Amino acid sequence: MNALATVRALFPIMSQQTAITPRRDENFPEWYQQVVKAADLAENSDVRGCMVIKPWGYGIWENMQRALDGMFKATGHKNAYFPLLIPLSYLAKEAEHVEGFAKECAVVTHHRLESDGKGGLQVAPSAALAEPLVIRPTSETIIGATYAKWVQSYRDLPILINQWANVMRWEMRPRVFLRTAEFLWQEGHTAHETEKEAREETMQMLKVYETFARDWLALPVFTGEKSAGERFPGAVQTLCIEAMVQDRKAIQAGTSHFLGQNFAKASGIQFLSRENKQELAWTTSWGVSTRLIGTLIMAHSDDDGAVLPPRVATSQIVIIPVTPKPDTRDAVFAACDDLAAKLSARSFGGEPIRVEVDKRDLGGGGKSWEWIKKGTPIRVEIGPRDLEKGSVAVARRDRAHKEKTFPTTADFVASVPTVLQEIHDTLLTRATAYRDEHTVKVDSKDDFVAFFTSKDDAKIHGGFAVAHWDGSAEVETEIKEQLKVTIRCIPFDAPEEDGVCVWSGRPSKRRVIFAKSY
Amino acid sequence: MNALATVRALFPIMSQQTAITPRRDENFPEWYQQVVKAADLAENSDVRGCMVIKPWGYGIWENMQRALDGMFKATGHKNAYFPLLIPLSYLAKEAEHVEGFAKECAVVTHHRLESDGKGGLQVAPSAALAEPLVIRPTSETIIGATYAKWVQSYRDLPILINQWANVMRWEMRPRVFLRTAEFLWQEGHTAHETEKEAREETMQMLKVYETFARDWLALPVFTGEKSAGERFPGAVQTLCIEAMVQDRKAIQAGTSHFLGQNFAKASGIQFLSRENKQELAWTTSWGVSTRLIGTLIMAHSDDDGAVLPPRVATSQIVIIPVTPKPDTRDAVFAACDDLAAKLSARSFGGEPIRVEVDKRDLGGGGKSWEWIKKGTPIRVEIGPRDLEKGSVAVARRDRAHKEKTFPTTADFVASVPTVLQEIHDTLLTRATAYRDEHTVKVDSKDDFVAFFTSKDDAKIHGGFAVAHWDGSAEVETEIKEQLKVTIRCIPFDAPEEDGVCVWSGRPSKRRVIFAKSY
Repeated sequence: MNALATVRALFPIMSQQTAITPRRDENFPEWYQQVVKAADLAENSDVRGCMVIKPWGYGIWENMQRALDGMFKATGHKNAYFPLLIPLSYLAKEAEHVEGFAKECAVVTHHRLESDGKGGLQVAPSAALAEPLVIRPTSETIIGATYAKWVQSYRDLPILINQWANVMRWEMRPRVFLRTAEFLWQEGHTAHETEKEAREETMQMLKVYETFARDWLALPVFTGEKSAGERFPGAVQTLCIEAMVQDRKAIQAGTSHFLGQNFAKASGIQFLSRENKQELAWTTSWGVSTRLIGTLIMAHSDDDGAVLPPRVATSQIVIIPVTPKPDTRDAVFAACDDLAAKLSARSFGGEPIRVEVDKRDLGGGGKSWEWIKKGTPIRVEIGPRDLEKGSVAVARRDRAHKEKTFPTTADFVASVPTVLQEIHDTLLTRATAYRDEHTVKVDSKDDFVAFFTSKDDAKIHGGFAVAHWDGSAEVETEIKEQLKVTIRCIPFDAPEEDGVCVWSGRPSKRRVIFAKSY
Repeated sequence: MNALATVRALFPIMSQQTAITPRRDENFPEWYQQVVKAADLAENSDVRGCMVIKPWGYGIWENMQRALDGMFKATGHKNAYFPLLIPLSYLAKEAEHVEGFAKECAVVTHHRLESDGKGGLQVAPSAALAEPLVIRPTSETIIGATYAKWVQSYRDLPILINQWANVMRWEMRPRVFLRTAEFLWQEGHTAHETEKEAREETMQMLKVYETFARDWLALPVFTGEKSAGERFPGAVQTLCIEAMVQDRKAIQAGTSHFLGQNFAKASGIQFLSRENKQELAWTTSWGVSTRLIGTLIMAHSDDDGAVLPPRVATSQIVIIPVTPKPDTRDAVFAACDDLAAKLSARSFGGEPIRVEVDKRDLGGGGKSWEWIKKGTPIRVEIGPRDLEKGSVAVARRDRAHKEKTFPTTADFVASVPTVLQEIHDTLLTRATAYRDEHTVKVDSKDDFVAFFTSKDDAKIHGGFAVAHWDGSAEVETEIKEQLKVTIRCIPFDAPEEDGVCVWSGRPSKRRVIFAKSY
């Protein structure tokens, strides 16, 4: 804690109070943990690195799932389900994949427990598995082995399948949503007859993720290709969407991999071609995960808690009855229910509006703050006087919490889809402006080092550096080791431009995006 | 194989051909495996007991999920997600639970792999976990530990949460969908202030399952309570829905458990009551799984393959273009797409009708048989002559496969919701008649033994015996050991009736349902 923060903590009256302590500019990582807690999104479980996703957090995931699932199906994909456990030998099939994934895994070695004779349990030594099984860190190998059985001829292609699943990677430094041992995700796995088709699929799904990030999460993202050093282990090409959050670090929010014939070779996915020859299929894989929840919290939230983009907010509107006197209570409750029914009958973004009425027997002020911290896009209060006037008191999460409007009920109901869209637009505009402000061309090594050096107590640095890179792995490694900065992507839309590498001084043809990242 | 079946196999022309070999009356278990395969629902993976659920099978699960999820939410429940892995010590907390679940489990003992020096991988001995973790066989213990943190006061109750998840029980005799090591399910876990509330919840969710089975799966079920011997380990009361399938065995299709205060005590879920006293919460849990897919296949399918109830069928209608000549191909395809669009715009059971057009370049006859075997409720063929006449050729899966009608396109589109409902009703009526025919009051031990003794080569026995039971565990155990018959449930609606136990001859106040089961 810096000196100012200490003073503020001791004399809260001196500072402008915020619902979350510390503020973003005081200690960003701790602010994030406190927002997740205050918004009731998730918590750590007693199992190291595994989180409990609470209803308010899981609701965001359900909304994300529904939207993405629709987009996957609209692009011709179907869902299926593959085993959680992968034989150890499968992971060893693809050489680079071994390096990347076969390290920190949860390994199942036994299939039975027995009494330990002391009222407890122990692993039964007699029940050791002949071959250990690994909880899937990703499913290329097990799905590849299955596709190898399904594919005989070019007529069996393409295979366009997605899986919604849990996966596990034994993380040494877990952080809720962003990096957890177990997380939820979707993983698309496709197999194609030609390289062209597989490359088009890889790009198509990246575009789906970009659209989803912008139109559902209000997140502007950079799209591009990963450098060889940052590629998915075993991939020929990894495309990604990269978001900036409010401490100016990057979060890789989604990836789409062109796997060439690497996994087809490792798994034996081959087919009789139109020319009657045995050929290897071309495969892709692509995924996003519950990490997206952490991303949007870090991108949009403020010092009063979460700020949820309306399209994925668990509830978009909360109605809070204000019932100072028992004799008007029933009438107020009835008006709230009536409003909720009217709102639920309307739609936004092609779905019925999600609304809840908070009838809990608690003080109105405390309740209101709970919903602010949870990030509910619109809060509505109805009290006895509102009933008389036929109006409601409306507050928006994208504006100051005291700023209210008092439309008639009918006007409010009519305006809701527009207001939700305005809130979405505000978040997207704000996030885009922030990102653009902190995405800077850097042209000298000194500037580059200074850019990534924190200038304040909250350890917030410059942001995204758009700088020339000579394309060498050595430079990439040096920068990573010295500054903890990586190449986030080689943007698709970067113009070819002569320059010199910001680190080595050697010639370069293009700029790439460097950043610190989660 | 019996003599007749052998003759039929050698001289197929002699018998009426069916798409599935063997027929139900020849070898029911093998018929089931062949239907699952022919309908492209699922297959065994290389990981023992773990299945791959293929798109046509997973689509059924998605439809089930959507319907159930809506019903859970309508009854006030929210979804959340809890860890896959459970510490060994948690499973030992509830004494009966230990006995029931802490046996055949997948146990994670290590968290890292390393090179074995021969190009392969091995478990890293240095990465042994201090406490082994078990892949959840069910989540009462881990969820209980979480609720214990959430609940302080009666104001924190009830907690009404459901989880959609994968679970794992190491099965020695796996059978696809019905009994697999890994399966998908939902598990509701609720905590309440009073016993009354918890018992009402238990019953409410059983009713949800009963309604779902009848109205979505076209499955008539018996509802009732399990005997002590068949209860969920740790439950005070287990309620269940029991379905009969076509070999007259029972399948427990869903359960709802009143857990009393057992798990609250084991996990420490306590709260300060309205009277300011520390009390233990009352909890429930309830679940259905992908076993339901196996149940409906065994209940409705026939010797030509799967017969899917329309409300959960992956696709409800398939349109097959008949294109004998290349010059009319485009026009036929266009008509098929146009019809698909019109059908998708209509709804059935509150959802858009699910249609697909099969444009694959294969013979029409083979294609049609594929969709019969898959159990698609309605098949439509459109050829050049249909275009001229403005009609379509329609076949229903609940009728003979050659029986077709030729309505105009407009009439067909208009009739589709009615036809789908008729198919649902046919399946329900048929399954109910079959069940009722084979649910028989049995009143002597000799008759009881004879009832459960197969009378033909296909090993099909009498069905459900409704018989008096003296209520003793000894009788239950003897019957189970001697006949492999268990008490499926003590039906709610059984009238009190004086009688004598069919096995012991001792006095009995009521009849219960005995059956062989999956």
